[in-house]
Amino acid sequence: MRAPDELRALVEESLSELRLDPTLGALEEPIRYALGGGGKRIRPVLCLAVCEAAGTSAESAVEPATALELVHTFSLVHDDLPALDDDDERRGRPSVHVAFGEAVALLAGDALLAEGLGLAGRCDPPEIGRELARATLGMIGGQYLDVTGAQMQLEELHRLKTGRLFAAAVGLGLWAADVPTEHQGPWRAFGEELGVLFQAVDDVLDGDGYAAELGTDGARRLAGDAATRAHARLERIEADTSVLAELVDGLAVRTA
Amino acid sequence: MRAPDELRALVEESLSELRLDPTLGALEEPIRYALGGGGKRIRPVLCLAVCEAAGTSAESAVEPATALELVHTFSLVHDDLPALDDDDERRGRPSVHVAFGEAVALLAGDALLAEGLGLAGRCDPPEIGRELARATLGMIGGQYLDVTGAQMQLEELHRLKTGRLFAAAVGLGLWAADVPTEHQGPWRAFGEELGVLFQAVDDVLDGDGYAAELGTDGARRLAGDAATRAHARLERIEADTSVLAELVDGLAVRTA
Repeated sequence: MRAPDELRALVEESLSELRLDPTLGALEEPIRYALGGGGKRIRPVLCLAVCEAAGTSAESAVEPATALELVHTFSLVHDDLPALDDDDERRGRPSVHVAFGEAVALLAGDALLAEGLGLAGRCDPPEIGRELARATLGMIGGQYLDVTGAQMQLEELHRLKTGRLFAAAVGLGLWAADVPTEHQGPWRAFGEELGVLFQAVDDVLDGDGYAAELGTDGARRLAGDAATRAHARLERIEADTSVLAELVDGLAVRTA
Repeated sequence: MRAPDELRALVEESLSELRLDPTLGALEEPIRYALGGGGKRIRPVLCLAVCEAAGTSAESAVEPATALELVHTFSLVHDDLPALDDDDERRGRPSVHVAFGEAVALLAGDALLAEGLGLAGRCDPPEIGRELARATLGMIGGQYLDVTGAQMQLEELHRLKTGRLFAAAVGLGLWAADVPTEHQGPWRAFGEELGVLFQAVDDVLDGDGYAAELGTDGARRLAGDAATRAHARLERIEADTSVLAELVDGLAVRTA
């Protein structure tokens, strides 16, 4: 059972060795820029850790995990655009549209999405491509609720916008490990808790979202409850889920 | 062998019955708006016509053809955005970002791309999803050449930006008809001519691109030569390609 840092190294290696479609030409530069920059790779690491906990070497899940990170990165590039969140910085660096212009950022995001779904579509079993496409659509639906100001539905918004890719991280790890549908339930119940946990901590760090609605203490409590439920879900899984428990604790106490 | 109008009716029926991912919620409205508006459905009709000419009922290619039209529509929605071509109108109606706002247009385009690649990924054989993903990346690469002003490479630009989806229309029809790789060559040679034919006529109608570079007569000659080559390619295919020949003539003389 490999530690999160070892799994993260697998993700970084896969991303750096990833061959983008040659017809993208010089668009590769902003795409590589978006993929770099010190992301924590939480979703792909989770995907690999699920695969290992389910009894299959993490290597089997490296391609699905990489596809997931491509789709996640697409969402960051487009979300940062002036028409959406209009963020000039991402992880302490200029966001893609500031560094390369808005047109290039739009196209780089499109390419990341097509690369991600294309890579997932080449994975075996075919459920990997299907689950990632559905999760991506859910995430876009959540972003739509966000931009149209449907703040009344904060929980539904986050269940989609953040939760769907976290749930897919677990799902893709299960498919990569050949866990049959009828045994996936307890794992997926675990995955459902992670989106709220991640988002509540994120909002505490940024002072918005749940923290604005419930206050910092309220958002912390929400995160703590989600972490407690996630641990309880892990205990119902008959496998060595120690690395997954470590990931839950890491999500709960992160400061960046 | 069904006429182009009958094939077009199949495409319209499939698009109107298409079930979008329910998590997209009210984003369905701008997506439906983008898909409507009187497009000629040239690419999906071509896909169906190839499938029939190859000896298989067009119904087998309806899902790939629909996926192709979703990806094509994604490209129109994003290309019209202010950061790219900044077009306020499309087929005589306000473009999506004018009708629904820039944020919603961006997300509607993202959703169309994910729906298109997702649908193609559920098609059999799996080569359908793979070819559409690659063609999409080629198209994005062409759009990148366009926005970065690489006008020196007008032919390469159009081979990617327009040509890749036309080539994929032929390719998807072949896969849907179970034509083995070793028999695809003559069909694909035909498909390679269609992008230039379409684009040169388009530029004559719009007075830009090839028409700006070569003059109206030069662009017309380019289109005529491509149509001649396309017909020559069809004659080398041992099948009833009469509907495909009709589509070539339609592309060559179109006025809108």
